[in-house]
Amino acid sequence: MLLDSPAVERLIEAFRRLPGVGKRSAERYALHLLGAPDEDAAALSDAVREARARIAKCSVCRNLTESDPCRICTDERRDRGVICVVEQPSGAMAIEKGGAYRGLYHVLHGALNPLEGIGPDELEFDRLSRRLEDASVTEVIAATNATAEGEATAMYLLRQLGRDGVKVTRIAHGVPMGGGLEFTDEVTLAHAIEGRKNM
Amino acid sequence: MLLDSPAVERLIEAFRRLPGVGKRSAERYALHLLGAPDEDAAALSDAVREARARIAKCSVCRNLTESDPCRICTDERRDRGVICVVEQPSGAMAIEKGGAYRGLYHVLHGALNPLEGIGPDELEFDRLSRRLEDASVTEVIAATNATAEGEATAMYLLRQLGRDGVKVTRIAHGVPMGGGLEFTDEVTLAHAIEGRKNM
Repeated sequence: MLLDSPAVERLIEAFRRLPGVGKRSAERYALHLLGAPDEDAAALSDAVREARARIAKCSVCRNLTESDPCRICTDERRDRGVICVVEQPSGAMAIEKGGAYRGLYHVLHGALNPLEGIGPDELEFDRLSRRLEDASVTEVIAATNATAEGEATAMYLLRQLGRDGVKVTRIAHGVPMGGGLEFTDEVTLAHAIEGRKNM
Repeated sequence: MLLDSPAVERLIEAFRRLPGVGKRSAERYALHLLGAPDEDAAALSDAVREARARIAKCSVCRNLTESDPCRICTDERRDRGVICVVEQPSGAMAIEKGGAYRGLYHVLHGALNPLEGIGPDELEFDRLSRRLEDASVTEVIAATNATAEGEATAMYLLRQLGRDGVKVTRIAHGVPMGGGLEFTDEVTLAHAIEGRKNM
């Protein structure tokens, strides 16, 4: 009913689709933008459009990137023998912030969740298999979230890749159970990677 | 450093300008939008632009509105003898949600704050004075916030309008309805006791 304007309702709805944003926050954001200087409102609208236009998934690791392949995949100093598999780009970024990990990544863009119809074909497993045909990869780290779906995804990785003789490890559960990687501080994440174990 | 992309940095910056949004939330919002379906990202960008294009300040009360004058100013059933002065559109909306107030509004778009260079000329006082030339207005309610700036603004209203013989009232400050005394801060409690009324 806020302002009685369909245009404002649509704006509030768009904000509500952002993670963790409820009705009240969405209304605050909308009201702020409506009262903000023209530049500020245009800045947000343009930034969304431009970022979307520039950012795509890396053709190798599926992380979000402005250049393809991404700067991690093309970085000669990274250890090409290790691939850290994460659910989302935010997971890879959280690990990068720690600065301890020197291998490569693979972003699945989700986790197995049969109830929601998300099976292996909905995720980036195919590309991961193709990357593993390169014999130089000696280890795959399952850095999926410490949730039921994340654990199931890690188990799937173990079954599929272990069959092909690839060593699959799981990050240590320094990550709090039930928590997403993006909510974990970088020191804990660094510990979790260091303390990884054979599955 | 997130994604090493100036376009993404601009997007995060744009989100951070929203009220109450810190670095972490802004990054989450940006990552979500980058991974969202095309429609979702376009929806936010378009909604910002469209809402800004459609919404303007009411030429009478300065509240945000899609039609001018706004639906409250043009509502024949509202009491045209009372004007409730608020700092922001959100204040008027909060009062409207209560549904008890039947008068009109006037939105100042801020509060007096000399340290930040906000004097009477920066706010919508001029238009308020012009509205008061209409002799049918008998009361102005100062519903500015219970902050130092809000109180200063209420005092200014009293001085300016009282001079012209307009009755200026201030909304009551006290214990929120449904709130226990033990959850109410001491300043509020002192106000509540001072402002006590016969039962």
